[in-house]
Amino acid sequence: MKAVILGTTGYTGMILLRLLADHPDVDEIIPVSSSRFGQPAASVDPGIGKAIEKKQGLCKGNLVTLEEAIAMKPDVVFAGLPHLESAKICQPFFGKSVVIDLSADFRIKDHKLFAQAYGQEPPCPELLPQSVYGLCEVYADQIKKADIIANPGCYPTCTLLPVIPLAKAGLLKGKIVANALSGISGSGRKAKVQSLFCERTENTCAYLPGQTHRHFTEILSQIATFDSGLDLFFTPHLVPLKRGMEVTTVVDLAKPVTNDEVLHIYQDFYGDRPFVNLVPGTLPETKNVWGSNRCDISWQVQGSTILLFSVIDNLVKGASGQAVQNMNIRFGFKETAGLSLYGEL
Amino acid sequence: MKAVILGTTGYTGMILLRLLADHPDVDEIIPVSSSRFGQPAASVDPGIGKAIEKKQGLCKGNLVTLEEAIAMKPDVVFAGLPHLESAKICQPFFGKSVVIDLSADFRIKDHKLFAQAYGQEPPCPELLPQSVYGLCEVYADQIKKADIIANPGCYPTCTLLPVIPLAKAGLLKGKIVANALSGISGSGRKAKVQSLFCERTENTCAYLPGQTHRHFTEILSQIATFDSGLDLFFTPHLVPLKRGMEVTTVVDLAKPVTNDEVLHIYQDFYGDRPFVNLVPGTLPETKNVWGSNRCDISWQVQGSTILLFSVIDNLVKGASGQAVQNMNIRFGFKETAGLSLYGEL
Amino acid sequence: MKAVILGTTGYTGMILLRLLADHPDVDEIIPVSSSRFGQPAASVDPGIGKAIEKKQGLCKGNLVTLEEAIAMKPDVVFAGLPHLESAKICQPFFGKSVVIDLSADFRIKDHKLFAQAYGQEPPCPELLPQSVYGLCEVYADQIKKADIIANPGCYPTCTLLPVIPLAKAGLLKGKIVANALSGISGSGRKAKVQSLFCERTENTCAYLPGQTHRHFTEILSQIATFDSGLDLFFTPHLVPLKRGMEVTTVVDLAKPVTNDEVLHIYQDFYGDRPFVNLVPGTLPETKNVWGSNRCDISWQVQGSTILLFSVIDNLVKGASGQAVQNMNIRFGFKETAGLSLYGEL
Amino acid sequence: MKAVILGTTGYTGMILLRLLADHPDVDEIIPVSSSRFGQPAASVDPGIGKAIEKKQGLCKGNLVTLEEAIAMKPDVVFAGLPHLESAKICQPFFGKSVVIDLSADFRIKDHKLFAQAYGQEPPCPELLPQSVYGLCEVYADQIKKADIIANPGCYPTCTLLPVIPLAKAGLLKGKIVANALSGISGSGRKAKVQSLFCERTENTCAYLPGQTHRHFTEILSQIATFDSGLDLFFTPHLVPLKRGMEVTTVVDLAKPVTNDEVLHIYQDFYGDRPFVNLVPGTLPETKNVWGSNRCDISWQVQGSTILLFSVIDNLVKGASGQAVQNMNIRFGFKETAGLSLYGEL
Repeated sequence: MKAVILGTTGYTGMILLRLLADHPDVDEIIPVSSSRFGQPAASVDPGIGKAIEKKQGLCKGNLVTLEEAIAMKPDVVFAGLPHLESAKICQPFFGKSVVIDLSADFRIKDHKLFAQAYGQEPPCPELLPQSVYGLCEVYADQIKKADIIANPGCYPTCTLLPVIPLAKAGLLKGKIVANALSGISGSGRKAKVQSLFCERTENTCAYLPGQTHRHFTEILSQIATFDSGLDLFFTPHLVPLKRGMEVTTVVDLAKPVTNDEVLHIYQDFYGDRPFVNLVPGTLPETKNVWGSNRCDISWQVQGSTILLFSVIDNLVKGASGQAVQNMNIRFGFKETAGLSLYGEL
Repeated sequence: MKAVILGTTGYTGMILLRLLADHPDVDEIIPVSSSRFGQPAASVDPGIGKAIEKKQGLCKGNLVTLEEAIAMKPDVVFAGLPHLESAKICQPFFGKSVVIDLSADFRIKDHKLFAQAYGQEPPCPELLPQSVYGLCEVYADQIKKADIIANPGCYPTCTLLPVIPLAKAGLLKGKIVANALSGISGSGRKAKVQSLFCERTENTCAYLPGQTHRHFTEILSQIATFDSGLDLFFTPHLVPLKRGMEVTTVVDLAKPVTNDEVLHIYQDFYGDRPFVNLVPGTLPETKNVWGSNRCDISWQVQGSTILLFSVIDNLVKGASGQAVQNMNIRFGFKETAGLSLYGEL
Repeated sequence: MKAVILGTTGYTGMILLRLLADHPDVDEIIPVSSSRFGQPAASVDPGIGKAIEKKQGLCKGNLVTLEEAIAMKPDVVFAGLPHLESAKICQPFFGKSVVIDLSADFRIKDHKLFAQAYGQEPPCPELLPQSVYGLCEVYADQIKKADIIANPGCYPTCTLLPVIPLAKAGLLKGKIVANALSGISGSGRKAKVQSLFCERTENTCAYLPGQTHRHFTEILSQIATFDSGLDLFFTPHLVPLKRGMEVTTVVDLAKPVTNDEVLHIYQDFYGDRPFVNLVPGTLPETKNVWGSNRCDISWQVQGSTILLFSVIDNLVKGASGQAVQNMNIRFGFKETAGLSLYGEL
Repeated sequence: MKAVILGTTGYTGMILLRLLADHPDVDEIIPVSSSRFGQPAASVDPGIGKAIEKKQGLCKGNLVTLEEAIAMKPDVVFAGLPHLESAKICQPFFGKSVVIDLSADFRIKDHKLFAQAYGQEPPCPELLPQSVYGLCEVYADQIKKADIIANPGCYPTCTLLPVIPLAKAGLLKGKIVANALSGISGSGRKAKVQSLFCERTENTCAYLPGQTHRHFTEILSQIATFDSGLDLFFTPHLVPLKRGMEVTTVVDLAKPVTNDEVLHIYQDFYGDRPFVNLVPGTLPETKNVWGSNRCDISWQVQGSTILLFSVIDNLVKGASGQAVQNMNIRFGFKETAGLSLYGEL
């Protein structure tokens, strides 16, 4: 099993490196960097240390170029690349390797909606029909057969997991008001003044509120699959965490329901899927899932309104961990292989 | 002008000490501590250093007992004490000094609503009618004449300032969904495991959501004064800030309105009040008001919905700063005396 | 393989729970809590989630009492208990189970030195001779045969690993000046005002400097084993990290040496031990070892002085990780089993 | 009194804007920005809000160009510009305005030492003889008469204040080992990957250790003025603070001395200077001086060694605050005018 990582020096790439280094079914990791190829992985990412070495046979411990990676004929490609560039760069792999794309390029099937969110048509429209939206707890059956998997965004993952079972059950109506809090790693590893330590510590703010964030489109188009009558207002906020995401969602109930009935709906939908952790009667905290691939979910019915609470690690279940989970499902590995079930302290 | 501080060793007391030490109209500060009286202020609060010394004539640089403070016949008393104890401890001062109570004891005039939120009747019900709710930009006329001023809670201050002018104008309808983010100092200075550095850093969560937080009652009872037809869902979250508060509020419009029309409503309501800072077209950040007594407000109309954004420093405009502002208004000092108009970096 | 954890609800216990949950050679975990026995592990520690369940056969998913743990006849006991209490509480296990004591009770063999540091005689002096100081990279041969292993303190681990090989080689002379920076988790999980988020964020200070910290005695007594002519000044500082420790050590050279010669001394001493990571030419950062059991070490010769730099995760290599490493060595497991070779981002 | 700020959009410039906005003796602030001139100060720095407006007569609330600033004939110029550029950009002001240079360009009089540290000759060597090193508590007499004041670096300020009185008294000998911890704002406001929130939170490291940091030269050349026989090893560390600096210094005593005798030496040297705050018997914490212009100092004699501890806010006493203090001394204002004597919480 040979796995390529594109964009190794970004945060999602760095997490992929760590998860795959410990993965029991991955034999060889091929880390690609267009800017730092030829350098030892551990000098570019000192945290990885020697952990990666034993899985870098052909790469001899170094980052490699895209061309070298293509020549190594990988089984799976993880693309941690910018939106609108990712699908194009991945083209040499389509049809040969399973591609798990962490960008948005395959997430929205409707060309017009994609263009509204990203300012232009999807980059590989001809491949859209065969791609699958990789929200693992919802689309596992399709993922098992897909060769192009669109790994969901962090906000969509955290927002959709508590909403979809209730929307599908016809329990919700009207306007969904979702407020999200995200750690700063969601802004990526680019050098920007507004991402500096001194700009983000002791600071919080909303950004791209209501119906203006790109992920708004991704979330609403997924919700509409289950209940086309729902409206959405989604407001993300930056909070001074490195990693972590919390979504609080307030929505009217279409019919009276008890907290216990909601529990049963979730249990029916998620069964014993390992990474959805229902914590009724508590309010989930992001530290409980830090480093884990879990999504912890709770809820409270208050009169004719239901409040939903969900937390993930934005870099794990919200990105690289779910990507590995998608690989596990696609290749028939144990779903939890290489992924953590507990949060670091 | 002699000012007593009750509860000097809590965070609100410590901020009061700082603000009054620099206040041009306060001649003498009388800091009370039931646990540490007799000790030098600077040994109990090393940050204050020598700044307090020149204003501690009668106290000789030390913390004093309640009895000593009463004997010094202060003009104004700032009570930074626990709810349900504050009004009782303040009794020797009523009728003699102006009392600015930072607890909730005088914030809710309706006995039943108070009891719902705080589990028992208000502690000094006979004084409630003469007390005034000290939201300075809304009730300045009453504050000028009041001898008991109920200093508002931090969440109510930050939530109400953008909402009241629109509610009064009849612009809002239905359910107000407010999501608030608060720095940890809002939890006070008690030793609790859940307030430890290691429990709160890299962590965020909602708590007491919807209609269950005590401040919910305070906020809704104020909103109802201006529009009794509005409902409220209010969910606070803890985020790893020492100081700072942000509220994002989503609410339906009762009639179409433009962003500019909203600006005019705010301008008409707030005029040139120094601490309301309208920042249309931007999204306010808590660091901009850190250490300041400002509330920065912006808004976005999206279809038939309006989104409101407001930030304060929870310990300043949300507590001790507004208390000083109340003193300034009550005693006819310059409204900005001793208060900062800018946020620390 | 059955492993007992004493003190499960402290930080070292919580990390042990996580490490053992993933350990390939541990079949059953018996988590003890004197205050919360009978409660499900996941309700006391929501971060652990379901990860622990599959390894809690006899405990049925719950925390148990000390008496229950004794009855389960564990192979190994990890004691994450307060100094001076630990050895006493562990007495029922001595002679029956291997005890890995994370407290200081067995760390200092000299009764007088122990009493200087801890204010009283060591609690089980009769067992001291058979106990072994569990600094894995230095005393592996003894650890293999020991039934009582004194797991080293965090400061001693991080300070000693770069110093011992050079002291043993006779390279150092005079006064060793070590300055250490520690994350707040080193202060434990007790509710104390000085450990509150608002007291520690945006704050740093030295404490117990020079020759006054308890770990000073532990460090110096170890150094003296290799070179009795060295003096030590050791000053710890609290910095606003949850986890992480850095030590900068400045010491005169007894004879001229090059950076390369130092490298060879370290390579000779540590060979291919997996958790000592030499990073010559760089300065180690704590984030590189966050969550890992690694100690990253570098050095610079400047004239007749050498500067040493070392980093660990204080809760892993500085506590629970090294405890697991001690178990691995003692029971002949793979040294890296259950331990991470890379730092979380 | 007209004051120009060069480099208004960096951290030192932003702090200067705040301090001067509140300064009782400054009538007009002229903020210069080469990149953002013409824009309103409050749009470039939303934290400053309306605080600046009343002092921007000629600038009409906007940032201006260097040329416009020159034409306004300021009394004082604060230069918050990069090393090696600052002196050149300031040339139009020399001889006309008092220039307080926050860069290193005038800090080191010896051309050779300057070149060792900064890689080239000092940019305006002909002006060096008339410039004064603006360490306010040491060189006040010269500052009163100087027209070019070299504002000291943050590390030198914090290291020198406890060392100079003892060095002058002949109390120290041999090697001074100083270890410093600095908040991230010391790295400035440039967009760099290594200054990102996610790279610095939960992270600490040493950098440029021993005798390699530029400030090493500045510190040693000052110490040599008082005792030329002392050697210095100085190692700075980055810790995840926005603002704050702590220095722990270990040095041998040239002769026996008690803690009380050291107190008297400091008292004799610093008298009642308002910003040196001696805190014998405690260990200073950076939060106590956050936002203040204070330097808190303590010490411990242990045998024949003395340990010194000092803390400042690196942006205030370590930069902009000391610059304002220099202005106060130079122009005969009250030394504390516009400066805070207490630390924010």
